[in-house]
Amino acid sequence: MTGLTGLARGLSAPNGFVVASQVAPPPDAIRLLSGIPAPEALPVDAIARASAALWQDPAAAVAALQYSPAPGSATLRNWIAEREGVDPGRIVVTNGGMHGLTLAVLTVVERGDTVAVDDPVFPGFRWALEVSTNRILPVPVLADGFDVDHLAGRLAAGDRIAAAYTVPDFHNPAQVSLSAAKRAALVGLAERYGFYLLVDDPYRELRFAGADQGVAVFHDSDRAIHVNSFTKTLGPGWRAGWMVLPEHLVDPVIRLRNRLDVHTSSVTQAIVERLAGEFDGVVHRARALYRERAAVLVGALHEHLPGAFEIHTPEGGLFLWARLADESADPAALFRRAVAAGVVYQPGEYFAAGPEQQSAARHLRFAYGDRTPDELREAVRRLAVAFR
Amino acid sequence: MTGLTGLARGLSAPNGFVVASQVAPPPDAIRLLSGIPAPEALPVDAIARASAALWQDPAAAVAALQYSPAPGSATLRNWIAEREGVDPGRIVVTNGGMHGLTLAVLTVVERGDTVAVDDPVFPGFRWALEVSTNRILPVPVLADGFDVDHLAGRLAAGDRIAAAYTVPDFHNPAQVSLSAAKRAALVGLAERYGFYLLVDDPYRELRFAGADQGVAVFHDSDRAIHVNSFTKTLGPGWRAGWMVLPEHLVDPVIRLRNRLDVHTSSVTQAIVERLAGEFDGVVHRARALYRERAAVLVGALHEHLPGAFEIHTPEGGLFLWARLADESADPAALFRRAVAAGVVYQPGEYFAAGPEQQSAARHLRFAYGDRTPDELREAVRRLAVAFR
Repeated sequence: MTGLTGLARGLSAPNGFVVASQVAPPPDAIRLLSGIPAPEALPVDAIARASAALWQDPAAAVAALQYSPAPGSATLRNWIAEREGVDPGRIVVTNGGMHGLTLAVLTVVERGDTVAVDDPVFPGFRWALEVSTNRILPVPVLADGFDVDHLAGRLAAGDRIAAAYTVPDFHNPAQVSLSAAKRAALVGLAERYGFYLLVDDPYRELRFAGADQGVAVFHDSDRAIHVNSFTKTLGPGWRAGWMVLPEHLVDPVIRLRNRLDVHTSSVTQAIVERLAGEFDGVVHRARALYRERAAVLVGALHEHLPGAFEIHTPEGGLFLWARLADESADPAALFRRAVAAGVVYQPGEYFAAGPEQQSAARHLRFAYGDRTPDELREAVRRLAVAFR
Repeated sequence: MTGLTGLARGLSAPNGFVVASQVAPPPDAIRLLSGIPAPEALPVDAIARASAALWQDPAAAVAALQYSPAPGSATLRNWIAEREGVDPGRIVVTNGGMHGLTLAVLTVVERGDTVAVDDPVFPGFRWALEVSTNRILPVPVLADGFDVDHLAGRLAAGDRIAAAYTVPDFHNPAQVSLSAAKRAALVGLAERYGFYLLVDDPYRELRFAGADQGVAVFHDSDRAIHVNSFTKTLGPGWRAGWMVLPEHLVDPVIRLRNRLDVHTSSVTQAIVERLAGEFDGVVHRARALYRERAAVLVGALHEHLPGAFEIHTPEGGLFLWARLADESADPAALFRRAVAAGVVYQPGEYFAAGPEQQSAARHLRFAYGDRTPDELREAVRRLAVAFR
């Protein structure tokens, strides 16, 4: 590219596996592809009311059209801080989760630094990380999350990292949550070795079973950056989220915001903060909806493909991470047959962080959140065709 | 700052001069400080209608709450492209003008590169530039804009730059516009020496006198990045703007967006694109309002402070850049007296790009856009007190 010399030079083209593999699903294929919320779970009526209330209030309308503080509106920060159990001064409102991750990377990761990442990993974080570095240390994700002992061993052996990245709740793609004990151990490592934790938590609100493993341990450390968003609850289209930052990182992140985009849309914030009173209800209904969909998907797999996968019923989030039971099965061939049968999912290899880590390739990631129960049942019937 | 190693490390705290100088204006001071639009010029009623239309259309509402294409919505890009006279594929929707500037810097300026900048310069660009470099080559701004001959001389003498930054229409702070002939000459230099033009054009729509000097010359070059925003017409609060990019830079900028914030809010874009039919009317009314305010300010200065300044009636934009006629006057003492008298403006020294360039310090920047005619007259009466 002529004259391209800046930070953009080293960035890869981020594409989903389905794009990268040049597979063209038939138009009527059922797509179990993305961790996006169900349209039915998004509170359009409440948003319409909040929006009308804003524009009918002359003083509020004028304020929403002007500049607002870089860290976010006081009302929105206070609401988020109360939910997170931290001082509002530690909240920075962002343009969504990816924005929070990239702000964190730009703040604490220097060019060429090494960053420990989940393996399998959310590919979007790999893209975000490219703004600073391509050097990663893949850390396996086990049944109870990020393998803290593995990282401890690497650090004891002399490896050094600037940061460690994990999705602690309803992991993307691996579905699991990080246990409370391992959260504490991970924070301990970060404090001992002086690296930052990049805690990516977009699915946290969507727990519909099991026990919350807690985030206070992150908030109590000056080494953890906790990133969340309204994407899974109010919709990706807002591009609205937040970071819970250690106090000493608030000012550096704000200095970045001053450059990058000044602040999150005042209009967006004015509408979102007017949804505070409805938010618990929105989340409650969303959890019920995703609980049903997860159960339908798991039930259909047991019914139509008994024994084909090792699966665990999700306790939250939007993903089922299913391991092929037959070690001799060819995942690539299965994917091609599934596409031909009219169902598309993300093959696990797309999420592998390390070339040596073969476990991911034995998995299929099914995203069930934005498919109806009928679509999920039909998707599994089509998948059963692909297995024959 | 503990462990701060990333790009945020080198960023200064961006503060207005009034903050930096620790001057505390009295609460009832008239503030001629910022290039922000008048509340009366912002189309609240049209926005309320567009917003209601969006949320009452179920399909549109659901779409607005989901992810949308990184370059921007097709409808919005088409509308902007038609206004700019370029192919829609060259438009990238941004989160406002500063976002566009920083995306441009991250795309074409490497760490340590030198960038030519207006002198006096919009301080926000200096802050944006810090994400890549602190090395600048100040170029005087003359009565017909950026001194292209000065830059040509420096380049001929061996200086090399990655980019050159200027505000071509209604310069901030220097009020002037770049002549058509110098636009062409500047593009010629960029093409000859292989640097990029960062053309920052937020005031372009606000012309109320004089002849448009044209932007086609920028759009016809693969060396010009043309940055604009809806900040001065629909309000800063939206954080919505656009870039007109050379074709070869569209993909690199999108790759950055994929990381930095994915895309501009789908909700914002859905509302803004519904204002297309009203936009000409909004701009027409805004121009009339700012024409009146500029005339009131200039008239009051002639009436109450005859001969105190060298001034030219603005042809557009939001600033009057007034030069002190008395070469022995002390601008700092004048500023202190003005604050005490209850009027605040930006002293010119705040905009100086080079330490050796003393002209800026002989100026006062008056921002008249968001002050009523009565406030402007009273502000000048108070300024006259400060001159006594």
